[in-house]
Amino acid sequence: MNMEPTGIVERLSWSPVELASRKARSLAGVVNFASGSPDPLMIPVREIMEALEQTLLEYGASALGYPGAGGLPELVEELKLYVSSDLGVGLKGDEDLVVTSGAQHGIKLLSQLLLGSGDVVVTEDPSFWEAIDPMRFQRARIVGIGLGENGMDTHALERILRKGLRPKMVYTIPTCHNPCGVTMDLEGRKHLVELAEEYGFLILEDDPYRPIARNPPPSIKSLDKNGRVIYVGTMSKVLAPGLRIGFAILGRELAEELSKLEQHDFSTSTIIQLAVARILRRGVVKSLLPRLRRHYEEKLKTLVEVLDEKFPERYVKPDCGFYTLLRLGRDAEEHLPRAIESGVIYVPARDFYIESKPIDAARISISTPPKEKIAEGVERLKRSLEAAG
Amino acid sequence: MNMEPTGIVERLSWSPVELASRKARSLAGVVNFASGSPDPLMIPVREIMEALEQTLLEYGASALGYPGAGGLPELVEELKLYVSSDLGVGLKGDEDLVVTSGAQHGIKLLSQLLLGSGDVVVTEDPSFWEAIDPMRFQRARIVGIGLGENGMDTHALERILRKGLRPKMVYTIPTCHNPCGVTMDLEGRKHLVELAEEYGFLILEDDPYRPIARNPPPSIKSLDKNGRVIYVGTMSKVLAPGLRIGFAILGRELAEELSKLEQHDFSTSTIIQLAVARILRRGVVKSLLPRLRRHYEEKLKTLVEVLDEKFPERYVKPDCGFYTLLRLGRDAEEHLPRAIESGVIYVPARDFYIESKPIDAARISISTPPKEKIAEGVERLKRSLEAAG
Repeated sequence: MNMEPTGIVERLSWSPVELASRKARSLAGVVNFASGSPDPLMIPVREIMEALEQTLLEYGASALGYPGAGGLPELVEELKLYVSSDLGVGLKGDEDLVVTSGAQHGIKLLSQLLLGSGDVVVTEDPSFWEAIDPMRFQRARIVGIGLGENGMDTHALERILRKGLRPKMVYTIPTCHNPCGVTMDLEGRKHLVELAEEYGFLILEDDPYRPIARNPPPSIKSLDKNGRVIYVGTMSKVLAPGLRIGFAILGRELAEELSKLEQHDFSTSTIIQLAVARILRRGVVKSLLPRLRRHYEEKLKTLVEVLDEKFPERYVKPDCGFYTLLRLGRDAEEHLPRAIESGVIYVPARDFYIESKPIDAARISISTPPKEKIAEGVERLKRSLEAAG
Repeated sequence: MNMEPTGIVERLSWSPVELASRKARSLAGVVNFASGSPDPLMIPVREIMEALEQTLLEYGASALGYPGAGGLPELVEELKLYVSSDLGVGLKGDEDLVVTSGAQHGIKLLSQLLLGSGDVVVTEDPSFWEAIDPMRFQRARIVGIGLGENGMDTHALERILRKGLRPKMVYTIPTCHNPCGVTMDLEGRKHLVELAEEYGFLILEDDPYRPIARNPPPSIKSLDKNGRVIYVGTMSKVLAPGLRIGFAILGRELAEELSKLEQHDFSTSTIIQLAVARILRRGVVKSLLPRLRRHYEEKLKTLVEVLDEKFPERYVKPDCGFYTLLRLGRDAEEHLPRAIESGVIYVPARDFYIESKPIDAARISISTPPKEKIAEGVERLKRSLEAAG
């Protein structure tokens, strides 16, 4: 028999987020701390519906043809304006923007394009499982660097570079980190770019939460002078993840290679691309942003207040975004069924860690539960832990 | 510097279809023999719009959340019914259906899952560039087998198997071949399954045109008893390629691995999945199929009549689907600008070939041009060739 996948199955597993989300979908009345989806209340359903209708009315059947590689010019143009004017990311003259089916698709394609067996990728420890797994699939070696209140410890990175480690790439979620909620400060960002120059590596800046952060530090991309930074963004946290619209900004030559690779899946829906271009053109996103920032900021503040009361010293204080890490004091995976019985669900975060794998870490997300349920969710979690002894 | 992709750029190039399609998009009044998109006249724009609206009204924001790996249960269920009742493909009890962003995304993921350096893939020569390129990217070796009026020459395949070739997989487009238009007969299909049993390889059956073929032979999948066939299909030729909905049918364990890999891109839009499920549930596809079959059959007949008149003995007589291969008698790539000046565009088909690369082959597709323009397109092509001397 010759039917086994080529030595690859051992590299594939289920994402802890996927597993927790499956459980969450079947549960009613449970406070969902597991999802990375934006708040359903903040998804502009009506505007999306109108944009889909108007797109079909305007383009007819041609809104439903093949998308072409790398994204439709209509959407590329609007996204370029959006990142420049609303995110302050900026595109240099020798750079281009490639549309992908969400940021994750972009990270997967970039992993395929840039990483091979033996390549080293440095990242924050913990990091986002869904981004790291495609790199592992390429047989890259992942090296974790601790992160503190100001994000990745770039001095620790410098020490291992001095000792001789030569990464191909540093992958970072510098703004509203997933799963930690911290933000890399300006000094750290500058230092990272200096190190990239000195030691000759790429930086993959994964920045999904920038649009919902109030006054975040400038993007690492904007501090870069020599095309060392690839920026990945998404409309998932701003509009809706179900649209599957993300993008990568990178040097023109690499952008062309990425588009060629994207021919292999051609996976971003044409009509959705046109509809999102229309939404951007109409200023829907621009007017949403201040509301989104306020909304998630208030929810996160609510979480911090109740964690300070119920679990002091047991979590990382988040700056922005959806997440924090909470140490449960017992096996988070094992405890999950009891937590669900108590009416709350989280993502066991062990597999987000690169080096040590603390079994008691839980990712808590405030994106999905209504603000008024956040305290109750934490209270339920606390009770379930106490009941477990 | 350390910025180059990992020895991969030399494996990436532009698809001849993509390049011709880009040219076609900028041209008005040109007879488009280049596109593999279905006829815009046959795309059910109104039904798609209604399905999108109804989906958003019914599900609200939850139609816009993350899709989850492997496809939404609502769509998986409808697609299973569709392939069983309308395509006669059938799913065995130990098989599953995985939703992908079009068939091409499925083929790419399967290539990632199953193929590595040194693996051999046998396919018809010529074959579809977009399907072969992801296999080449995995560093598989592609071996071409000639095809005649009855599809792949399985006796030629048997000869090279006897000589010792051990493919991991045979990739085939058995029904309405792309770019040749021929269909593998029942005998060939049975023989191929026997060879798969005897020599222990997988068959990847890429079957996008079955829904629009009148009385095609049974799928290779339906002749298989031991899970050796992976079936890939799509809604692109039936509804619209811009939706990006395809699927793979395969053994349950492999289906789970495919879904795990699909987590790396999560690229199929949630709302589109729900809308296509609704379209299938409403019977829209079932009632479309007879019209589609008649429509494309008539267009292909028109093409055959005019080719018999203008280019006798210079093309492969197609059975069904969108395509045939025409030998221009001069360099098809070089001639393309002159053809476009004369008001007709095709895909130079050299890169569809695996072994020999005949420079004068052109893929002619009848899907996009109106029926009454087909003769004119062929006439323009003939005149442009005559003018070129």
